[in-house]
Amino acid sequence: MDGKRKLTQLSELGEFKLIDHLTKDFVNQNKSSLKGIGDDAAVISTSNGDIVLTTDLLVEGIHFNLVYTPLKHIGYKSVVVNLSDIYAMNARPSQITVSLAVSKKFSLEALEEFYAGVKLACERYCVDLVGGDTSSSITGMMVSITAVGFAPAERLVYRNGACINDLICVSGDLGAAYTGLQILERERKIFESDPLIQPDLAGYDYILARQLKPEARIDIIEKLEKSSILPTSMIDISDGLSSDLLHICTQSKVGCRIYQEKIPINKETARVAGELNLEPLICALNGGEDYELLFTIPLGEAEKATGLQDVSVIGHITGQEKGIKIVTDGGSEILLDAEGWDTMASKNHS
Amino acid sequence: MDGKRKLTQLSELGEFKLIDHLTKDFVNQNKSSLKGIGDDAAVISTSNGDIVLTTDLLVEGIHFNLVYTPLKHIGYKSVVVNLSDIYAMNARPSQITVSLAVSKKFSLEALEEFYAGVKLACERYCVDLVGGDTSSSITGMMVSITAVGFAPAERLVYRNGACINDLICVSGDLGAAYTGLQILERERKIFESDPLIQPDLAGYDYILARQLKPEARIDIIEKLEKSSILPTSMIDISDGLSSDLLHICTQSKVGCRIYQEKIPINKETARVAGELNLEPLICALNGGEDYELLFTIPLGEAEKATGLQDVSVIGHITGQEKGIKIVTDGGSEILLDAEGWDTMASKNHS
Repeated sequence: MDGKRKLTQLSELGEFKLIDHLTKDFVNQNKSSLKGIGDDAAVISTSNGDIVLTTDLLVEGIHFNLVYTPLKHIGYKSVVVNLSDIYAMNARPSQITVSLAVSKKFSLEALEEFYAGVKLACERYCVDLVGGDTSSSITGMMVSITAVGFAPAERLVYRNGACINDLICVSGDLGAAYTGLQILERERKIFESDPLIQPDLAGYDYILARQLKPEARIDIIEKLEKSSILPTSMIDISDGLSSDLLHICTQSKVGCRIYQEKIPINKETARVAGELNLEPLICALNGGEDYELLFTIPLGEAEKATGLQDVSVIGHITGQEKGIKIVTDGGSEILLDAEGWDTMASKNHS
Repeated sequence: MDGKRKLTQLSELGEFKLIDHLTKDFVNQNKSSLKGIGDDAAVISTSNGDIVLTTDLLVEGIHFNLVYTPLKHIGYKSVVVNLSDIYAMNARPSQITVSLAVSKKFSLEALEEFYAGVKLACERYCVDLVGGDTSSSITGMMVSITAVGFAPAERLVYRNGACINDLICVSGDLGAAYTGLQILERERKIFESDPLIQPDLAGYDYILARQLKPEARIDIIEKLEKSSILPTSMIDISDGLSSDLLHICTQSKVGCRIYQEKIPINKETARVAGELNLEPLICALNGGEDYELLFTIPLGEAEKATGLQDVSVIGHITGQEKGIKIVTDGGSEILLDAEGWDTMASKNHS
């Protein structure tokens, strides 16, 4: 590289732009590479069904904080977030690999805790640990998990299939994992300023569980199948409803209207958001890490969908020219922007 | 965890024992999980052929040093070491995912260099980049790559198939990557003690290329197929001939005799080993990172094997009771031990 050239800071690009930029010149050479970068998982075709492949990196100090996260939970969550990506393709996960880099400060017993969490998730979701790698690291811990799943080609659901008039559905409720994280961060700061003060986590059970031990919604995938509903598009909510709905709309080349009153928010989430001077709606839109499923279904399936427990219809797909908008309780229409988790976090830190 | 219990240092276990210990309680639940931990790659069966899956972690300061390794080379090598594991199963790689964690000190241009190396390897080996993840890290760089390959079930070669009287073969030559690393480390130390002294790397072309830009031996896999030789066992030499031959013998429940005079060592490797007061044989046995293929073939294929260019027959398989031994030029028989790269490195540092 030319030392005189001005170098570009990574912070000038977001994560998605960065990936796009770095991988734009890659051209697939294998017919079996059906879907590459840009969905919840890659799809590799074989003559009897498709293989779905996804990978996630979890870095200490970025994705988790060992001050308040037990290693067993990190093991569990690391697996679950990958499985969630496989379910978001409407596929079933079957195998994972787990790679781990740790510094010398970690004991064998600490790693046993981590693997106990991995094992619990494997048993819960019926997936097998088939490989991995362990390594030293200079500082801290890093986990890299790859999950493999299978689905018949005609059952796979991508991000780009939403059509005008489709209903937009979301499972469970939103914003809880984010408010849970805010409570953990608040207590960490108090503890760090005075180690004699014990963390007060009573009354936060639901949101803490959502942050520390998320589950992947296999139950929703199973319910959809039983009801013979094949979503037209699907994504799991890892970055926040706004950001993930934008992925669906952008890739499907459509617009949408969602309604504030329809967005499912748990009572505890709303109460704690208030306590933290946060707007519950903003937590739901931009919070992230809920690992709920966001999907679209044909309008004709409306009746079936309303019968599904724990699924909310929050809006509908429109033409692209109508924009990606939320209708507030006050009746105003607001453009949703791509600002998910990152902006939220930095807003909160500032 | 009980705070009073004495915790076990990770250094008390080696990498292989650590993985065994941490994963011993995992039980596979899916029929498709044909081969889990313990070979070059996992094998997932489908009704029309098997999927081979492998993953590797490369950590700055542990696996590579940015002082003397261009990022493009790190990208290239990260891919190649994974592909080498796929070839070692006698399968063909077709897809990879690349995950990257970097600290803020990295510029976009630096990552472009890394991805240029990834792309070069993808093109050279005809594999597609289909996914990955990027993340911040607190310090340094970490790369996690997963490679997927395919093979008909009957063509797969495991580590556990070596039989008594089989011939032991190795491709290329050994010890070069390790001596290359020693030269880079020597020049780094000189540079750090006096930054005005420029590194002197003339005359080390071959061993430096072997360290910085290793290749995976697809050519050997192709030659074996053309010659209709199906190895009975195979592994790629990443930890050193000793350690990797031990894997084959232990898993196949056999012993072996290899012969010092037969072990292929490049002239430059031998010369530089002398310059560094290292025994060339020890570099070949314990050096690691050569990414050559070590395999066994039935005695009946001896004639075919001797006709293969760039393949050396270095010994034969014996009964387990005869031990895993090398016969030196002086005629003495020495037990090979499991000490690969790690011990070598620490011996050298001490």
